[in-house]
Order: sequence, then structure tokens, then C-alpha cells
Amino acid sequence: MKGKVWLVGAGPGDPELLTLKAVRALHEADEVLIDDLVNPAILQHCPHARVTAVGKRGGCRSTPQAFIQRLMLRHARQGRCVVRLKGGDPCIFGRGGEEALWLQARGVEAELVNGITAGLAGATQCGISLTLRGVSRGVTLVTAHTQDDSPLNWQALAQGGTTLVVYMGVAKLEEIQQGLLDGGMAPDTPVAMIENASLAQQRECRSQLRHLQRDATEFGLRSPAIMVIGAVADPAIMASETQVLTASARRA
Amino acid sequence: MKGKVWLVGAGPGDPELLTLKAVRALHEADEVLIDDLVNPAILQHCPHARVTAVGKRGGCRSTPQAFIQRLMLRHARQGRCVVRLKGGDPCIFGRGGEEALWLQARGVEAELVNGITAGLAGATQCGISLTLRGVSRGVTLVTAHTQDDSPLNWQALAQGGTTLVVYMGVAKLEEIQQGLLDGGMAPDTPVAMIENASLAQQRECRSQLRHLQRDATEFGLRSPAIMVIGAVADPAIMASETQVLTASARRA
Repeated sequence: MKGKVWLVGAGPGDPELLTLKAVRALHEADEVLIDDLVNPAILQHCPHARVTAVGKRGGCRSTPQAFIQRLMLRHARQGRCVVRLKGGDPCIFGRGGEEALWLQARGVEAELVNGITAGLAGATQCGISLTLRGVSRGVTLVTAHTQDDSPLNWQALAQGGTTLVVYMGVAKLEEIQQGLLDGGMAPDTPVAMIENASLAQQRECRSQLRHLQRDATEFGLRSPAIMVIGAVADPAIMASETQVLTASARRA
Repeated sequence: MKGKVWLVGAGPGDPELLTLKAVRALHEADEVLIDDLVNPAILQHCPHARVTAVGKRGGCRSTPQAFIQRLMLRHARQGRCVVRLKGGDPCIFGRGGEEALWLQARGVEAELVNGITAGLAGATQCGISLTLRGVSRGVTLVTAHTQDDSPLNWQALAQGGTTLVVYMGVAKLEEIQQGLLDGGMAPDTPVAMIENASLAQQRECRSQLRHLQRDATEFGLRSPAIMVIGAVADPAIMASETQVLTASARRA
């Protein structure tokens, strides 16, 4: 009997945004390790597995990374099928790739399953087209939170022509606002702040770069939240692009 | 009887990377409109629907956007449930948001379902961590292909500190390479080119920025393909980050 570890994205919160591959992994699981940001409703797919919470926030404060790694390794070496379930996509700010390599280096089969990452789902839920033609050249996902607290290159990010999606930014509002303003981004750049993306309790706050910190504080923005920064966060822009489709449908 | 249009992401190719919500939409569908980049295996989820190919490439050359819009509108107004199935995520370079708004403005219910976008899935399949800690601050998705052929701000993209993922770049190899070099990106920056991400016929080619065009040509890179540009595309970088996890597991 050979063990295996699946490193699986649980998606942004809506249990229906789980992939079929994630569901199969959960069906096969003997052990499921879940992070904080995973919707417990997803556990319906693994009724017979033993579920262990290994989140880094909430009640038990913190399960060290090293402990989680050794737990996965021990279970797999006992021939058990392990699913490590992470919020969003385990490969976007989730260390999934590194954990997979670490396990493989120890002779354990490890497989990654992408999930829908919260930044992309949150924008969709708010009617924002991150890559709107003629307005945005793409999308940049960054995290405001790093191990060594090194600053981002806000100037390059402000000028890349892409919509910015900031993860884990609630504790860094001032840095984000000031960094982008100093980097040359227009003070009236639209901002959407989205809390609990894709869940029933999703909340959103629209603002502008110059008022980002003030409005987030007034709104009481709390983690988990993502911020969408760029012209596409202005509802009027979306409406005008719809006019383009209308014109083209009339001409045809 | 009220019609509805679902704008659904089919994911990168692997039929198991479809979401549960996409499967539900397909089950409900009377009419399914599929783009070129959708894996036909996904149609197993809609055995009773009428399927129409509306792709913009391949045999029939091109189905105009306006025709597709009016087709969706007509079916929905006849009370039918329509699924428009797009490769990857309909909200990433897919115009899903605009189509949804256009339909809603005409009194038709429209719902978007995110999919796993090819750029993120392709990197995972090649063992690349796009947002590797200490190496990359995030990930930028851009398309090299635009309506008006306006150039990207390669300098800002080169200096943003994020991993770059270029969609639809096969016809723009020279522009990508030269733009990033001129923008100050190091000539030895690692590049991974991934064709048919997540499918059985996936192929990958590793190169460096200075040899991007030459190596892609030698390799015979063809669409659909994505390019991952940045330090994380170097396999040695991934191995060294795994050492960090090893050290931390030993200490604990």
C-alpha cells in the first residue's frame, strides 16, 4: 500500500467552485488537513476521512509549517492518502509547489491540484473584468505580506498597465496607498475592496486610491480580503465597454 | 419559462479541472456554444444539449463576436438555458464580463463561472511556483495580442518583481524578447514555454530571455501556448527553496 499526498486548492469559498479533481482527491482521502480559509462545506466530499485543522490563524493560533510537513510525510509513509486542502489556489501565495517538491524529495508521491484563486473570483463576483479590453493589459497578483517585509516596487506596479490585485493587504493599507501614489498612480484610480470573496457574506467597498485607507477603515474591512486597483474597478468603465459590444452587434 | 445564459470557464484542458458549478450549468443546458480551446471531453456533462462550435480559429475560420452575442440572446429569449463555454477562465482575456453585462442590459439573466486559467495551470504542471517566496512577489498575466497592437510597457513589466506569464505570445516572440531586454530584464532570465497546458499532449521548452525567439522556433512552439518568464522558471531555484523547508523541518 503506497501513500500519497494531494495538495489541493479549495477555491475562494463557494463550495461549487471546487474542481472535479479536488473532489476525487477528497473521495480518496484517509486524512484531510485543512487551512483556515477553507469552507467547511467542502468536507461533504470526504465523509470518511479524518479531518485535522492546521490553519495558521484562529483558535489554535498557529500550526508550524514544519509540523504540517512532517504530519503529511508520516501519514504518507504509513500508506495513507492525504489531502492538504488550502484556500484558493495552492500555487498562488500558497507554497504548494515547494511542499510538493519537499515530499517528492523524500520518496513520497505528491500531486498539486489548482483551485480558483480568490483575487480572480472576487473580481468576477463584483462584476469587474480585470483584463477589460482597451482599458487593462492584464492583471498582476501581489501579496502585501512577506516574510522579510521588503517593499514592493510600487512604481513599476503602478505603471505596468495591468490591473493590480493585492492579497493580504488589510494590515498594509497605508503602505499600499502611499506606495502607489508615490509610484505615479493617479489619486482617482478606482479601487474595489472585497471581503470574503464568493461567499454569502461577501462584502465590497468601492473607493479611490487617495481614499483607500480612510474608506477601508470606515467600512471596517477585515481579512480575508482582496483589493482590485485600476480603471476596471470603476463601474462606469464596464458600462461603456458594453456599448462597444452593442455597436458591433448592430453593425453585423 | 425563463431563459438564462451561463458564461463558463472550461479550464485549461484537463477535463477534471472543471468546477462543480460548470458541471451543474452544463447539466442544465439546452444549448452549448463552445470555443476552440475547449476540450471536447467536457461535453460528456451535457449529453442532451445541442452543441454549436463558435470558435474563432480552426476550420470555419471565424464566428463573429456579434453573431455569438445575438445567438445567445435569441436562445435565452426563447426560454432556453445557454452555456457559453470558453477555454480557461472567461474573465481572463475572455470578455466574459462584458458579455454578461451586455446580456443583462437586455433583460437576460447571465451568470459567470470562473475557470482555472491556462497560465496558472501550465506553470503548476511544469513544477513552477509562480509566486515562490523570496524569489517572486507575485504574478502578472498579460496578453501579447491586442486589438490595436499597442505595445506593452515592457520596462515596468520587467521591473515589477513579479513572474510574468504571457498569453497568446507565439506570434510575438521577437517583440516580447526585445521589449523585456530593452526594459532592463537580465538576458539570462529563465523562460518556460508551455504548449497545450494540462493536456496529455502538453510540451514544454526551457530557455533564457536572450534565446527565447531562437529556442521557441527550434522547438516548433505552436498556439495555444503560455510563457513563464522569471527566476522561478529555473528548476534550480525550486530545489533551493525546498532546502528551506527541509531546514525548517529539521529545526522544529
